[in-house]
Amino acid sequence: MRNIKLVIEYDGTHYSGWQKQPHRHVKTIQGTIEKVLQTILGKKIKLIGAGRTDAGVHAKAQVAHFQAETTIAADNLRSALNSLLPEDIVIREVRDVPDSFHARYSAKSKIYRYSIINRLYPAALLRKYYLHVDMPLDIDAMRSGACYMTGKHDFSCFCASGSSRKKPVITIRDIQFKTRKDIIFIDIEAESFLYKMVRNIVGTLLEVGRGRIAPGYIRDILSRKNRKFAGPTAPAHGLCLIKVKYL
Amino acid sequence: MRNIKLVIEYDGTHYSGWQKQPHRHVKTIQGTIEKVLQTILGKKIKLIGAGRTDAGVHAKAQVAHFQAETTIAADNLRSALNSLLPEDIVIREVRDVPDSFHARYSAKSKIYRYSIINRLYPAALLRKYYLHVDMPLDIDAMRSGACYMTGKHDFSCFCASGSSRKKPVITIRDIQFKTRKDIIFIDIEAESFLYKMVRNIVGTLLEVGRGRIAPGYIRDILSRKNRKFAGPTAPAHGLCLIKVKYL
Repeated sequence: MRNIKLVIEYDGTHYSGWQKQPHRHVKTIQGTIEKVLQTILGKKIKLIGAGRTDAGVHAKAQVAHFQAETTIAADNLRSALNSLLPEDIVIREVRDVPDSFHARYSAKSKIYRYSIINRLYPAALLRKYYLHVDMPLDIDAMRSGACYMTGKHDFSCFCASGSSRKKPVITIRDIQFKTRKDIIFIDIEAESFLYKMVRNIVGTLLEVGRGRIAPGYIRDILSRKNRKFAGPTAPAHGLCLIKVKYL
Repeated sequence: MRNIKLVIEYDGTHYSGWQKQPHRHVKTIQGTIEKVLQTILGKKIKLIGAGRTDAGVHAKAQVAHFQAETTIAADNLRSALNSLLPEDIVIREVRDVPDSFHARYSAKSKIYRYSIINRLYPAALLRKYYLHVDMPLDIDAMRSGACYMTGKHDFSCFCASGSSRKKPVITIRDIQFKTRKDIIFIDIEAESFLYKMVRNIVGTLLEVGRGRIAPGYIRDILSRKNRKFAGPTAPAHGLCLIKVKYL
């Protein structure tokens, strides 16, 4: 039995997220790739992803793995997958990995990027991958606010209700701001994330950037452990899983 | 009567190019903006663009002008236009200009960018704006080939048949290659362009990059003044009008 790792890029616009939803008639990334794997390998395949991206969220380098008995060489498998997959899902890499490799459990951290275009008028060309914000943003204030979030905290306040996760204590390794002209990237690295956590963090940082919340208030929000004190959820289309790190 | 200049960004994917085609039921950029201008200003408006981009070609900064009697301030006109236009057309700038300003005749040069992603597997996120080339490209050879094209030449060989333009002698001011990882931008600046000229030039340079044509052969192609000696036409979706220069 081979253990095979995939690195996947996708445009999440037209998908109901990564995870297969067997009881609903919706298109998902996992479901779409599993179907193509079944066509190529002739049997049902269970694909395990590193992160379960939400509906409308993109990935530059999602990682997944599956086990199969096949003699198809890794590069040929990539070509076969890419020729059968729709054009909004691309397999960047196919590689044999040791049995011990697990896309989710072996991952040390994931980096999500939130992309913002900050100018008076919207964007025609980047509209599907960037959130347009027309109000001026105070990036320094956003950076200060983000400092209160890095490290180990109870992130209940940034966790969407309806999440079943038991442990809301998470370590954010780093929040980086990268700016170029009217573009702002917010890169957030953590070992794991709560449901809609990145989009709730970004929504709250945008409130800081607009001057509606003082950066220091982030500390209060965290200590209250209640979703209603944080800012709104930023839209899905600005979010992209850009890296999964392994040892 | 005011003379008003627009700077326009658009995603050309779903349009039959810039120019209105009154006798065909197709969606064009010019037609779409003229219709919205008529809604706002209450009368028929004739919009004149700097460059007539083809079907599927994008623009980051197309320039156009029109004349109208209106008291709406430029910034309010921009907001009104952007709120009524579809999301794949955005007005970046609205500005009053002297009567002598003409979007096409006052233009000193235009810069078109052709975007290529050069790697084994296609792109999911950039697929609508980049041509995917999976064969390795010799960028140095392409640069050498491009040198033969800069300057004043008869570009009949790079002009699509069916063009009615009389003067095929054109000056290319500059061809620049910009590379970053697996991305290649080819920026071509000229006073004017023949029909499909940029896409025919890029198609030919790609033949050079793939090693099918020697860079020096470009000189022969130019001297033969016949379309059939040049390479194929590169697809529309990689092309974008990025700048129109005025004095």
